[in-house]
Amino acid sequence: MRPEEQFEILKQNVVEIISEEELLNKLKKSYEKKRPLKVKLGIDPTAPDVHLGHAVVLKKMRQFQDLGHEVILIIGDFTGMIGDPTGKSETRKQLSREEIIENAKTYKEQVFKILDPDKTKIVFNSEWLSRMTFEEVIKLASKYTVARMLEREDFGKRFEEGRPISIHEFFYPLIQGYDSVALKADVELGATEQKFNILMGRVLQKEYGQEPQVAVLMPILVGIDGKRKMSKSLGNYIGVNDPPDEMYGKVMSIPDEVMIDYYRLATDVEPEEIEKIIEDIKEGKVNPRDLKMRLAREIVKFYHGYEEALRAEENFVKIFQKRDLPEEIPVFEVNSDKIWLPKLITQVGFCSSNSEALRMIKQGAVKINGEKILDAVDIEVSSPVVLQVGKRKFIKIVNSKNQIVTN
Amino acid sequence: MRPEEQFEILKQNVVEIISEEELLNKLKKSYEKKRPLKVKLGIDPTAPDVHLGHAVVLKKMRQFQDLGHEVILIIGDFTGMIGDPTGKSETRKQLSREEIIENAKTYKEQVFKILDPDKTKIVFNSEWLSRMTFEEVIKLASKYTVARMLEREDFGKRFEEGRPISIHEFFYPLIQGYDSVALKADVELGATEQKFNILMGRVLQKEYGQEPQVAVLMPILVGIDGKRKMSKSLGNYIGVNDPPDEMYGKVMSIPDEVMIDYYRLATDVEPEEIEKIIEDIKEGKVNPRDLKMRLAREIVKFYHGYEEALRAEENFVKIFQKRDLPEEIPVFEVNSDKIWLPKLITQVGFCSSNSEALRMIKQGAVKINGEKILDAVDIEVSSPVVLQVGKRKFIKIVNSKNQIVTN
Repeated sequence: MRPEEQFEILKQNVVEIISEEELLNKLKKSYEKKRPLKVKLGIDPTAPDVHLGHAVVLKKMRQFQDLGHEVILIIGDFTGMIGDPTGKSETRKQLSREEIIENAKTYKEQVFKILDPDKTKIVFNSEWLSRMTFEEVIKLASKYTVARMLEREDFGKRFEEGRPISIHEFFYPLIQGYDSVALKADVELGATEQKFNILMGRVLQKEYGQEPQVAVLMPILVGIDGKRKMSKSLGNYIGVNDPPDEMYGKVMSIPDEVMIDYYRLATDVEPEEIEKIIEDIKEGKVNPRDLKMRLAREIVKFYHGYEEALRAEENFVKIFQKRDLPEEIPVFEVNSDKIWLPKLITQVGFCSSNSEALRMIKQGAVKINGEKILDAVDIEVSSPVVLQVGKRKFIKIVNSKNQIVTN
Repeated sequence: MRPEEQFEILKQNVVEIISEEELLNKLKKSYEKKRPLKVKLGIDPTAPDVHLGHAVVLKKMRQFQDLGHEVILIIGDFTGMIGDPTGKSETRKQLSREEIIENAKTYKEQVFKILDPDKTKIVFNSEWLSRMTFEEVIKLASKYTVARMLEREDFGKRFEEGRPISIHEFFYPLIQGYDSVALKADVELGATEQKFNILMGRVLQKEYGQEPQVAVLMPILVGIDGKRKMSKSLGNYIGVNDPPDEMYGKVMSIPDEVMIDYYRLATDVEPEEIEKIIEDIKEGKVNPRDLKMRLAREIVKFYHGYEEALRAEENFVKIFQKRDLPEEIPVFEVNSDKIWLPKLITQVGFCSSNSEALRMIKQGAVKINGEKILDAVDIEVSSPVVLQVGKRKFIKIVNSKNQIVTN
């Protein structure tokens, strides 16, 4: 494909490209010399769970691959093995060699749902970093100033508030930048919050006599709470490994306002079609519920295929719509991941005692997500479930820890 | 000698000991276990010229040696070989292995005029630093915070004024501190301006599980201009290698107000005797000129022996006092280190042309520092000289680059 066409595709959904001109030039050179661009993404080996937030960036990488370019995933095992030497940061726990390899494997299985394995190279940055001498480290550190480092938002804020920043923390952006030097990266991708670190790569590549990489910054996907950035620790995420029913249900729980963001960033629906959907909503031509069901279907289809998407939708409809499900189901919050079914039934007030609840279970009058439960088992409530007792009593059980907003 | 007595001697002339209690305890332990203390001094291999300013610290080290302790000189060859990677700092020029060895040799020859070679160990810090891995460097950097580093006066000032500080500069104090860890130093000496760096050693030793070293901070000797710190670059120094006549003459040029500092910090005159001299001055019992001549004698004696001191004094008296030398000799400033004698004579106005000056030289009418000069040679004026033409024309030639204040 001609460089100008590639450029138009790669620009889609991007927040910022630094710079567009440089990207176009690199695409042209790559086209002329038939040399694919090296497109870099840094991976944190401490958090191998991939969710739709990560997928925003990964899907952009896939576009590069489909246009013939080479994707390089850098597993940051060097810093992973060091962890936080001060022992203060929980997000920088120290990992063993085995844990890192295991995490990388887990990670790979997930990203290959999005990336093309044949056009993906995976490298560990300890390969070049663990060989660096103190002298080379000093040279690296000489390339950047303290004042400019404190321009990074989190550093600047901590510095101003008098919260300590250990000197070694300055090395994390320096290392990320140096990785681009080691790989001679042409492009680095990341969410907008990675802007500082990715620009560091540009600075260092220039300092080491290379042509600077292009920064491609992607938007941040909001979590299913519709409020905060999608993240595992906030519990507001959809994992690429989530089973179809759970994935479908989670998408159905997002607020209407963020639906279009999800269409743009989490599906393969064409931009023109999304524009049409926006028009339809404005003119009141479509029911938001139908649009959300399509969204859920598209997302499940992407990760599990068309068949599974249909099946998940069927299940959802069966439970939540066909079975006399009232328009508005009341919600009951629990604060544990599992709960003993008879206890749950009495807590929500459907029975007055555990023994009465037990009797109802034995009689086949109790259903979870539409399925009859005949034993006094523990119910998994880490994602929302609908409890039904008898013909008319419905209640949605949500886990308050996950802070899911019902709609 | 008993620890308490040692302590009293070591306290002499010191600005600050951090802490006195710890020093006394270390002396006691050393005394009990018959294990000498390790007394550390860091040496900058880029500036091998030792002057009386350095000697203040070296004389304190000699006291430790005389009390049976071990002195360790650390040649900072590691940073010397790196230099300043940004190329901006002239004081941190990069040295070759050969230059460092040559400088260390030059340095050694000079310090052994003060230190006892048998109780002095010399080490190069590249021995442990060049073997450090990136991982160990990160651990080292994790021991200190950015905010505390900026408490160092020069860093803090540059930061506030918006002048750049490269991140690698933070490593120089960290390295100095880590050297104390590598050596398990008990005491580190330095001028007061080294306080921050020496305290860094204490912090790091604690972090690496060692008993912290004691910081012994010495006063800074003012230069022969009586104004600024003695330093080679300011040209206001007396080198320990200066020949006797030059050394004597330089001491005679210091302002009266700083004489007592020189007695205290640059001679072996006993403290009680110095107290008596101060009394005598107050009561007007002595002529400051005589006191200064004794000072010059004491200093030359220390570096060149008694005979040479007497000879230097004799020469000085012969030239400056006996030979009809006027009380006040006018001063003429030149701005090069060498100058052709006939040109000098015409420039100061003693002759009206170079050819007339040449005639005077041939006639034996021209003297430099009291010695007849019979050829039109270049005169070395990097330190002040007295030019005499005929019987009555005297002028003192000073090099404006050296900014020496006449008295």
